[in-house]
Amino acid sequence: MSPQALVFDAYGTLYDVHSVIQRCDQLWPGKGTALSQLWRTKQLEYTWQRTLMRRYASFSQITREALEYCCEALKLPLDAAKAEALWQQYLRLSPYPDVPGALHKLAGRKMAILTNGSPDMIDPLVRHCGMEKTFDAVLSADALRTFKIAPQVYQFAVDQLGVAPSGIGFVSSNCWDALGAKNFGFKVWWINRQDAPVDRLDARPDGILAGLGELPARLAS
Amino acid sequence: MSPQALVFDAYGTLYDVHSVIQRCDQLWPGKGTALSQLWRTKQLEYTWQRTLMRRYASFSQITREALEYCCEALKLPLDAAKAEALWQQYLRLSPYPDVPGALHKLAGRKMAILTNGSPDMIDPLVRHCGMEKTFDAVLSADALRTFKIAPQVYQFAVDQLGVAPSGIGFVSSNCWDALGAKNFGFKVWWINRQDAPVDRLDARPDGILAGLGELPARLAS
Repeated sequence: MSPQALVFDAYGTLYDVHSVIQRCDQLWPGKGTALSQLWRTKQLEYTWQRTLMRRYASFSQITREALEYCCEALKLPLDAAKAEALWQQYLRLSPYPDVPGALHKLAGRKMAILTNGSPDMIDPLVRHCGMEKTFDAVLSADALRTFKIAPQVYQFAVDQLGVAPSGIGFVSSNCWDALGAKNFGFKVWWINRQDAPVDRLDARPDGILAGLGELPARLAS
Repeated sequence: MSPQALVFDAYGTLYDVHSVIQRCDQLWPGKGTALSQLWRTKQLEYTWQRTLMRRYASFSQITREALEYCCEALKLPLDAAKAEALWQQYLRLSPYPDVPGALHKLAGRKMAILTNGSPDMIDPLVRHCGMEKTFDAVLSADALRTFKIAPQVYQFAVDQLGVAPSGIGFVSSNCWDALGAKNFGFKVWWINRQDAPVDRLDARPDGILAGLGELPARLAS
């Protein structure tokens, strides 16, 4: 049965967080890939660690602080101008190549973004990608001052969209996010672009896709 | 002022989680380091993610499940015998070389371990290392069915030892753990064996040491 609403994770699912690599490489030749990977790792760790220690900070603050940490770890000199240049890049991430076409095919359904990203970063990014009209809502966990995969973040989508958990199809390429949503009660597709194993977190996704481009056909079948 | 009690993290601080590398290399030649590093990374991620999603599992279960994931990710065939061999190795981790000498010099103080490790794994490890009499208490976050760096884990040490937070000196080589403890109110030494930057988590350790061997002199000064 086709879900009443589709809810998408943003960073890593619709938008490629590693599309900052080229800009990183311009600033520090040859270091772009290592910096981008560590930046993403630390960004996520800080969301989990701050939640546990009860010291919430917005995803934008965490993202900037993670960049500081990573540049220090990799011994890449970071000044205010470089930090701002990379931050501006983060507001202009590229969608994955198959995303615009897939979203176009899914148009007409109720669709939303549910992201850790605070409004000061997700709203400019959605606008930059020309997707303001694609989604009925852009929902940020920042409204609750917590992060996925806390169950209340998924409940927030239920409340805001007015659709029961069983009527929501959730799409994420972050396996832990997909399993958090499954554990909450959504129907879940995990976009497994890297051919990774399923995380061991007491749940399995309902479907595993190699890219978002497969979703329209999967929903139609 | 010298603290009334010293509380030590276990895994990565007293005991070298990467002392499994040799055994891993015996099972899968050349893959020991990669497996051990990913195993530790996933083990920690699962503690944070399970806490957020409110699906507690013991550190021993998480450690075994993380191993399964990592072997699948690295395409290393894991059967029950290999899993058991590595699990047994985890119960016999080596202390870091400077740990026994440092603990010997610190003897006479009130000392405890505060660990994520469930009793079924930390107790055999402490016995294997002949440290049963070194510590006044071996405290596991498992008693609370949560993980560091949730503040209630540090409170558990306060309650069990009968020492106020300001009287506890906490020692960890996991920076996030050190900062969680600092945020809670302990005096904190971070053992920074890798010369890493301080994590950006709204706190700074009181002292940064290159190894546990430096602690006795630091406390005496």
